[in-house]
Amino acid sequence: MPQPRPDGRQSDELRPVSITPGYLSHAEGSALIAQGGTHVLCAASVEDRVPGWLRNQQRGWVTAEYAMLPRATHTRTARARAQGRDVGRSQEIQRLIGRSLRAVTDLAALGERSIVVDCDVIQADGGTRTAAITGAYVALWQALLWIEREAPSAGEPEPFPQFPLTEAVAAVSVGISADGADDDPMLDLCYAEDSVAGADFNIVATESGRLVEVQGTAEGSMYSRAQLDTVLDLAARGIADLIAVQKAAIAALT
Amino acid sequence: MPQPRPDGRQSDELRPVSITPGYLSHAEGSALIAQGGTHVLCAASVEDRVPGWLRNQQRGWVTAEYAMLPRATHTRTARARAQGRDVGRSQEIQRLIGRSLRAVTDLAALGERSIVVDCDVIQADGGTRTAAITGAYVALWQALLWIEREAPSAGEPEPFPQFPLTEAVAAVSVGISADGADDDPMLDLCYAEDSVAGADFNIVATESGRLVEVQGTAEGSMYSRAQLDTVLDLAARGIADLIAVQKAAIAALT
Amino acid sequence: MPQPRPDGRQSDELRPVSITPGYLSHAEGSALIAQGGTHVLCAASVEDRVPGWLRNQQRGWVTAEYAMLPRATHTRTARARAQGRDVGRSQEIQRLIGRSLRAVTDLAALGERSIVVDCDVIQADGGTRTAAITGAYVALWQALLWIEREAPSAGEPEPFPQFPLTEAVAAVSVGISADGADDDPMLDLCYAEDSVAGADFNIVATESGRLVEVQGTAEGSMYSRAQLDTVLDLAARGIADLIAVQKAAIAALT
Amino acid sequence: MPQPRPDGRQSDELRPVSITPGYLSHAEGSALIAQGGTHVLCAASVEDRVPGWLRNQQRGWVTAEYAMLPRATHTRTARARAQGRDVGRSQEIQRLIGRSLRAVTDLAALGERSIVVDCDVIQADGGTRTAAITGAYVALWQALLWIEREAPSAGEPEPFPQFPLTEAVAAVSVGISADGADDDPMLDLCYAEDSVAGADFNIVATESGRLVEVQGTAEGSMYSRAQLDTVLDLAARGIADLIAVQKAAIAALT
Amino acid sequence: MPQPRPDGRQSDELRPVSITPGYLSHAEGSALIAQGGTHVLCAASVEDRVPGWLRNQQRGWVTAEYAMLPRATHTRTARARAQGRDVGRSQEIQRLIGRSLRAVTDLAALGERSIVVDCDVIQADGGTRTAAITGAYVALWQALLWIEREAPSAGEPEPFPQFPLTEAVAAVSVGISADGADDDPMLDLCYAEDSVAGADFNIVATESGRLVEVQGTAEGSMYSRAQLDTVLDLAARGIADLIAVQKAAIAALT
Amino acid sequence: MPQPRPDGRQSDELRPVSITPGYLSHAEGSALIAQGGTHVLCAASVEDRVPGWLRNQQRGWVTAEYAMLPRATHTRTARARAQGRDVGRSQEIQRLIGRSLRAVTDLAALGERSIVVDCDVIQADGGTRTAAITGAYVALWQALLWIEREAPSAGEPEPFPQFPLTEAVAAVSVGISADGADDDPMLDLCYAEDSVAGADFNIVATESGRLVEVQGTAEGSMYSRAQLDTVLDLAARGIADLIAVQKAAIAALT
Repeated sequence: MPQPRPDGRQSDELRPVSITPGYLSHAEGSALIAQGGTHVLCAASVEDRVPGWLRNQQRGWVTAEYAMLPRATHTRTARARAQGRDVGRSQEIQRLIGRSLRAVTDLAALGERSIVVDCDVIQADGGTRTAAITGAYVALWQALLWIEREAPSAGEPEPFPQFPLTEAVAAVSVGISADGADDDPMLDLCYAEDSVAGADFNIVATESGRLVEVQGTAEGSMYSRAQLDTVLDLAARGIADLIAVQKAAIAALT
Repeated sequence: MPQPRPDGRQSDELRPVSITPGYLSHAEGSALIAQGGTHVLCAASVEDRVPGWLRNQQRGWVTAEYAMLPRATHTRTARARAQGRDVGRSQEIQRLIGRSLRAVTDLAALGERSIVVDCDVIQADGGTRTAAITGAYVALWQALLWIEREAPSAGEPEPFPQFPLTEAVAAVSVGISADGADDDPMLDLCYAEDSVAGADFNIVATESGRLVEVQGTAEGSMYSRAQLDTVLDLAARGIADLIAVQKAAIAALT
Repeated sequence: MPQPRPDGRQSDELRPVSITPGYLSHAEGSALIAQGGTHVLCAASVEDRVPGWLRNQQRGWVTAEYAMLPRATHTRTARARAQGRDVGRSQEIQRLIGRSLRAVTDLAALGERSIVVDCDVIQADGGTRTAAITGAYVALWQALLWIEREAPSAGEPEPFPQFPLTEAVAAVSVGISADGADDDPMLDLCYAEDSVAGADFNIVATESGRLVEVQGTAEGSMYSRAQLDTVLDLAARGIADLIAVQKAAIAALT
Repeated sequence: MPQPRPDGRQSDELRPVSITPGYLSHAEGSALIAQGGTHVLCAASVEDRVPGWLRNQQRGWVTAEYAMLPRATHTRTARARAQGRDVGRSQEIQRLIGRSLRAVTDLAALGERSIVVDCDVIQADGGTRTAAITGAYVALWQALLWIEREAPSAGEPEPFPQFPLTEAVAAVSVGISADGADDDPMLDLCYAEDSVAGADFNIVATESGRLVEVQGTAEGSMYSRAQLDTVLDLAARGIADLIAVQKAAIAALT
Repeated sequence: MPQPRPDGRQSDELRPVSITPGYLSHAEGSALIAQGGTHVLCAASVEDRVPGWLRNQQRGWVTAEYAMLPRATHTRTARARAQGRDVGRSQEIQRLIGRSLRAVTDLAALGERSIVVDCDVIQADGGTRTAAITGAYVALWQALLWIEREAPSAGEPEPFPQFPLTEAVAAVSVGISADGADDDPMLDLCYAEDSVAGADFNIVATESGRLVEVQGTAEGSMYSRAQLDTVLDLAARGIADLIAVQKAAIAALT
Repeated sequence: MPQPRPDGRQSDELRPVSITPGYLSHAEGSALIAQGGTHVLCAASVEDRVPGWLRNQQRGWVTAEYAMLPRATHTRTARARAQGRDVGRSQEIQRLIGRSLRAVTDLAALGERSIVVDCDVIQADGGTRTAAITGAYVALWQALLWIEREAPSAGEPEPFPQFPLTEAVAAVSVGISADGADDDPMLDLCYAEDSVAGADFNIVATESGRLVEVQGTAEGSMYSRAQLDTVLDLAARGIADLIAVQKAAIAALT
């Protein structure tokens, strides 16, 4: 029988999630996502140009940056360290966020524009990269809505042939405990669980159930094909719940 | 007669100010200060050691770091730029915050401990460095309270001979407009005012009215001794009001 | 029906693979792996100390570094760029190599020693990170053999209670083409295939079939659970073949 | 009664000051200023272009850089440290020098040209930033004279509608001792005084008595409005004397 | 009488040398040179542009880069260190390689093209910079041959008025032992000799016997004019032998 | 017949040279050397420790650093560029200066002390590295004299068994013009000559005529053994003259 979780959740239960859209007043799109003790501020900025290698192709680009405030963590992380040794971790995460958002963006419909989504972790309690993806989708949605409303008010033609987001995308973590193969995988690890997990999965998927990214990493405990299947089932359920929260946040914007 | 201000304030009127103490759950002390559209998150971290040059002197140290999130500003500031060209501005500001806090800290009473106060600007609308000082004082207060309560609960002796803060400190900006010497100085500039000011002052003072720092910088318009006197009068009134808000926030903690 | 592959291989066929153990004369362990046009030089260095956070725990550590020579690629990559913008990619890869090696290393049996495995890509034609893992295992094996033989010759006690490698580990890539869901996944992509793939998988597994890492990344084409299953089947077969090549190389050393 | 000063000066007495204009042969303008043991070499370089954000506005720009030679100080400062940790101090100082020079420069009269004034401290004995401003004014003057004489000799039209310097600018430090509020402030601190001062002021003002910058910083001792007034009186007298030395140096050039 | 050398060579005897031309498949020119235990991989990359300061002068440019793999040496050199403290050594060496190649290149005949020759040390056993020059000449030769053959096949005119290499260039080290002035200089030091040498010479010369570079460096033992003469004689003989090996490698290409 | 030189000197004639010992008041040793338009400030700093790899060997160390002020040159060199791209040139030069000084220093007699000689180019007109060596010798001499006088005054034993400098060392440049093999080499190039030279030599030698360093670099024109002999003859004469100037400067110190 599985161990009880530190916060009493069932193995297939998400932490409480809330998304506050439009949290910032300067950014074209923004959202503050709180998933348990993990709080990530996502800010989407619109730029009227694309990277050099994309120029003159009538296509846009979506990218992301990811960072943590020094005291997001239990003990303070020096900024210097965050910018030095951990630069690899940050780049790995921001590439993941960018790919996840582009997977549901019709870049041709977006036109020659770039959206940069800054994901800054205000407080960390496990699952910051997956929360960042879930929140960034809402910030991106608001930024595209801003373009759609701004252009006509400036007497310009409709900016998009169709709204550039094809479906919702969200992400969640799953973990396998270190001490034995029989334990149930657990959905949405908090930090106390994550730090002792034997294998750790980040799954990104869309509303239609297609997979964008599967990352399954064993440090202490390798895993079987059967365990991977259970992990993917759990993630699918969690992602469906997160997409419902995204939709409610977006509804509040329109 | 002076120009009306963009938000209709009187020349001696602060923007609405609120301070939320204890905003973060991991930090020993924290406060989110909102002064008009300027929002700064201050996090105070306690460390049981001091910098090398202070060791074995039975004294503590208080220091600060300051940074802006990329989309705190009207247009996005690239992180790379923020860490490169603007590093001088950030260091100048964080040294100012550190000096201001140390001016009211009894470092001998603090003992061999360091407090680092991270001031991260979530949203910028003028006066971020002065708001950071005002908010950092509350975060520092909470961190010292945490030490005071933690030590006895761990069976240790009283940590301080007396509470190490001697009086409150706060800061405010004042500006002189660029177009003429007769205009009234204006208290607590928002960004729209700051960006066109002819001279720009940051004043840090304590509850007892002593000055910690006066910085008066002319780019476009030099100023007279008489104008400097008016600026200092305005700042004194603003700082008194800010200290009242600090006291209310601290009262909510205890 | 699937497209023919550029080099005429079947979809489940590896490129020709050879591993030259002991390629370098100074390194305690080394191997040059050639997998088609991808050539990676792996050098394992033994150090008689462990990172600070592991000290005095009677356990060892295995880590890796990964880099490309400037003209490993079709067009030259400036060293400056390789050290700047691509630092995130390199760190991501070297963490993957390190985790994969540690998954089959008994760190307690290793004792307070570190092994660093440098993986330098001499020539790149797709799949450099997976080839690096496969080659690094052989270099690590030789370095451990060196310790085992060196210690007694220096009159020291047996260095290991048992040989610290628990089983073989190897890795391979699999790809799904961008143009349609019905195409067969293809094993061991060369660069020409990799650059047009719709989704790209790196799988690390051990001789006993347990999974160490699954990374499945969609940029252009998302994928279904069924496709992921086919991918994992293909990878299992490729990894079994690679482990046979590793065993032959190791046999040549002893 | 105030303490005697280490070099026997009165509290309102400058150290001996000399300015050697045209010290360098390649620079368009230069001056070596010696103020007591503080020696700063100022070199003004003319460039026929302006920063990007100023282009096509028929205005020029004046900026400064500031650095110390490693053995300008009592003990050697490593170059690496000077370029790392102290970069904030240098940037803060060079922005101050640049603002001070621009305050007396008619940028429209200058036309689309930039002047960069490098201020390198050859030997430091307190007050390097204020000496740099005083010397930089002379170097800037010589560089503008060079433009004025060079243009007609090259058959070009008069370069300036009028000489672009509107009046002289100079700077001086003042200090308050740490041990008591009754002590007289002291003009032009040497290093031995500066290192024990309780509050430290840098004042920049023009020949007509207008203030360009007031920086008053307390580390150990806060100060009153009355003390600030005395400081400003002392500075006004010192700056008048320094401007007389500048005028003599400039007269030697013409 | 001179000491016997560690590998039994005569004082005027080179180590065994082999050059493998065309070692890499992507680079336009390449060569792997093995001189005793020193192995350097040279890769020549052709670019259809020249540095900015050479533009529109109908001349080309040849440059080099030099680096060591971390485990080329007896003990591992951290990449960070190789990129930090040793950057000066690498730049010094790569400038030497570039100058040596340009000395025998007719840059006007080359036309507006650049060749960058990357010299990466796979294994180091003394004399890496001189081996790099000897190998780089072969890689450069192959890259120029590639241009000559590629252009007509693309229907373009003959690329060169004449082949741009005017004669062969090669390099060798010579050493004087630390313990006495009477010892014979020794040709082509291995690492064990180099690390105890009293003075160390690198000589670059051409087939016609002209000198391109003479670098004679004493750390422990200064040297006389007579010793320098013997050194130059030895080097001339060694370089003649190396040029014969270059010619054989080039013959294999054509 | 050789071309006349820009400043009318004979081919074997040095530029006017002066050395001002004790130019700085904080440094233990210092000298300002002016050789024609080249001015280098040399400052020797004494430290009571040695680098880690020399510890506990009863020997000292002498090292140097070299840099140029931004406006030492005809046009300004940005500090950023000086610290980036040109770092290799500076490191190459400072290693040369350090080796040259150590060649005449009895490191055992020096004891466990380090001397760092900072060579900062105030104005550059060719031959800055050779002037730096010649000046640095005087600064080093004064620093050793300071140690010798300081120790007894502090009641300590005699610091040196004998004075640690064994003989004088100085350096000079020689050049061969680019346009023909028959031209006489010229001693002590100024910038106008250096920038068009075909080959360029830096020679470091001691009072007794022994060679410390010979660097002969051809960019445009290779050179013969016979030319190298003439170069070495010229350098020997120049160095003898420079050593006479050093001796006069040192005599003024004692």
